[in-house]
Amino acid sequence: MTVLDFPIIQGRGFRNVEDGGRVTGFQFQLRNPNYRGGPASLIDGIEVVVDGERVPDHVPLWTLQGRTMGLEELRASTDVRWQLDEPATITVPFPGGLAVGVHRLEVTVFLRRSYFPPMVARSQFTATGSGVIVPPAPAGGIRHGVSTYSYTGDVNTSMTLEDVFADIADMGATGIEILGEGNLPGYPEPDPAWIDGWHDLVQRYGVTPTNFGCWVDTTRYPGRDLTAEEGAEQLQLDLRLAHRLGFTSVRPKFGVVSWDLDPHPIWQETLERSLDLAAELDVVICPEIHAPTPIRHPVTQGYLDFIEKTGTGHVKLLIDTGIFQTAVVRENAEDLGTDDEDDVPPPLRPLRVPMADLVEVLPHTHFIQAKFFEIDDDLNDLHVPWGDIVPTLEAAGWSGWLSSEYEGRREPYRGRDQVRRQHALVRSLQRGARS
Amino acid sequence: MTVLDFPIIQGRGFRNVEDGGRVTGFQFQLRNPNYRGGPASLIDGIEVVVDGERVPDHVPLWTLQGRTMGLEELRASTDVRWQLDEPATITVPFPGGLAVGVHRLEVTVFLRRSYFPPMVARSQFTATGSGVIVPPAPAGGIRHGVSTYSYTGDVNTSMTLEDVFADIADMGATGIEILGEGNLPGYPEPDPAWIDGWHDLVQRYGVTPTNFGCWVDTTRYPGRDLTAEEGAEQLQLDLRLAHRLGFTSVRPKFGVVSWDLDPHPIWQETLERSLDLAAELDVVICPEIHAPTPIRHPVTQGYLDFIEKTGTGHVKLLIDTGIFQTAVVRENAEDLGTDDEDDVPPPLRPLRVPMADLVEVLPHTHFIQAKFFEIDDDLNDLHVPWGDIVPTLEAAGWSGWLSSEYEGRREPYRGRDQVRRQHALVRSLQRGARS
Repeated sequence: MTVLDFPIIQGRGFRNVEDGGRVTGFQFQLRNPNYRGGPASLIDGIEVVVDGERVPDHVPLWTLQGRTMGLEELRASTDVRWQLDEPATITVPFPGGLAVGVHRLEVTVFLRRSYFPPMVARSQFTATGSGVIVPPAPAGGIRHGVSTYSYTGDVNTSMTLEDVFADIADMGATGIEILGEGNLPGYPEPDPAWIDGWHDLVQRYGVTPTNFGCWVDTTRYPGRDLTAEEGAEQLQLDLRLAHRLGFTSVRPKFGVVSWDLDPHPIWQETLERSLDLAAELDVVICPEIHAPTPIRHPVTQGYLDFIEKTGTGHVKLLIDTGIFQTAVVRENAEDLGTDDEDDVPPPLRPLRVPMADLVEVLPHTHFIQAKFFEIDDDLNDLHVPWGDIVPTLEAAGWSGWLSSEYEGRREPYRGRDQVRRQHALVRSLQRGARS
Repeated sequence: MTVLDFPIIQGRGFRNVEDGGRVTGFQFQLRNPNYRGGPASLIDGIEVVVDGERVPDHVPLWTLQGRTMGLEELRASTDVRWQLDEPATITVPFPGGLAVGVHRLEVTVFLRRSYFPPMVARSQFTATGSGVIVPPAPAGGIRHGVSTYSYTGDVNTSMTLEDVFADIADMGATGIEILGEGNLPGYPEPDPAWIDGWHDLVQRYGVTPTNFGCWVDTTRYPGRDLTAEEGAEQLQLDLRLAHRLGFTSVRPKFGVVSWDLDPHPIWQETLERSLDLAAELDVVICPEIHAPTPIRHPVTQGYLDFIEKTGTGHVKLLIDTGIFQTAVVRENAEDLGTDDEDDVPPPLRPLRVPMADLVEVLPHTHFIQAKFFEIDDDLNDLHVPWGDIVPTLEAAGWSGWLSSEYEGRREPYRGRDQVRRQHALVRSLQRGARS
């Protein structure tokens, strides 16, 4: 099941519409602002102001129960309803449509209410909000996905797992990344019915499972460290679960032993013990390169040496784009006490990893977590230089998933809006972008 | 299915706990504040500050997967988890428990994170909020219910229909009132599977269907008024639906023709045509007395005359407690432009209907919608004089449902908190109240 957004203007469904190859307007979705649903004949129009430009209340079209109607048809209708659980789709004629990016919407819905005194029975409901027009994904090696991490706090509260799929599909993305010990009810033994439901969502929304996040919690047991045998048991459990759900890579997050995020020494044996299974399932194990560890660093080199030494095709790097940050993050999901760059603890300072370093490891890079924190109304990312990263990936001919990982402030619906912004921004920077 | 609250401290589950007849502490529920779930052995305690009083982190007990554990047991556990979709129940030893009413909670959860540098791996998550201790419902004629109207905006967004049942049961209420054209997906023809699900919820939560709100939209068709025949068709449709779901009364809200809320003249024939069906189904039709219509008014008198004239036992009054308001509402769900009492339009001024008038119509009153707008942290209702209403009902020996109808500001989770406050307040005023 899906749920609706509390704000009247819904996040999903904001898009340009075409007719005969020409862009003729835009569309958005609106939940019923009244406390009851009712016959559509009681709808009395909607005024839309987009970026300050007013569209009169009799102009937009309404779609309810799959039928699209103008205001007069709506008033004359006898068998159409605006239910509380079914958003109306509003189509606004607007030649050329809206540009890619963030737009401000102000709407006034008019509803006739029989139970209000006649002089005030045509009542008004106003709502304001913004929406993001996301362009289609350009063809090429970069594939666009989203991690459920982006929706932390929203999942299980203001969105269901199906809403995650629906959001991803709605913005024309095609990949879903999940956190095993996060999104699997009953982990590590999800109900078979849940697994069936998962495959049903994958089918229905046309979304591909990409990467499965897992953890090797080396401090899991107080008083002693996890053994390599236990680490391998954990990783193999996750490899099997991931495979069962259709994922093609697993990111094990190892416990660390230093400020530089040196992984616990069991990492190597944990991987060695799991290589055969990874090959058998054809799932790639992806250690993660995450700030404050840059690319030119013994940790990264250790993984590369491992790949070379073992000759495995089932261990590759996962790059978290936080390593390319150019500015201190003041919009973090968790308050880490950051402030001016000179005052912040060294592990939180922007790493500014150069593109040349990225180019060097791209042949060993299977997956990119497109970490970001804040994209403003003009589609400027305040911290991560997509204008450098995207052309670098394209020039190198890299192909793989770029999977949105929003890590900014956790407020309801915020991650969902920010992910749309990121997809709009990144796709605009790609070759063959449509504005 | 149910969903969780976005705030870490959940609204449901806040209660005192007893052991051997003595109140030994209190309990609340917490969703996992981390972005992942994990083994419970990584939980490292919770500090609770309740109304400024600190309970150290090793003291509270944790309940996960039905097992209640102290901190040491939690740390040593190997097969318990704190999932993202399962709130932990925290039990705080606190002799005597907490008083009925609103309490401030500040919690700090400690989680060991293996993937953080060792010096900061014991990470803290803080959350603040408030909870409402609701006393048990005293015995007597007053039965306690809740209308889904209270949760307008929350239903379908931050709560499911099952959450409505769960909230009602959690506060020890036993009745649910719904809006037909609001809460029934597919109205007027809900899916039989939905109806089965409804009866399952009724059973599982031990909650009784009370009143079913319906509308006779006399201005439904532009250009002409609804006929009495159409009005009766609508009412009878709702009587049948209500009966099918187990409701024992239906409130038809007629279109009105004046500032005084005079119902459209078809009301009488609409009722007449429906009396046989109401008797056959044993469902009481309840016209609503709602501000700005007081009890001593031709509209109310019209309904009483109708009851007397027809001798029906299946038409009775529904009283909305907004008629007893003693102060202008500045906390309305919809902004009606109110301000100082002298400036507000007469229909929005407090009616201050005297208790003597209520006593007079109580014999004909089947149902009371306990309308309210704002109850403060000290359980003072800013507008509705429960201290007069509750003793009046008890002195008259009235029995029936008092069904919460919150109509204050529509912000996520606000109605849910306010309804708990109302139940705490009203029950405190009843004979036999426990503090």
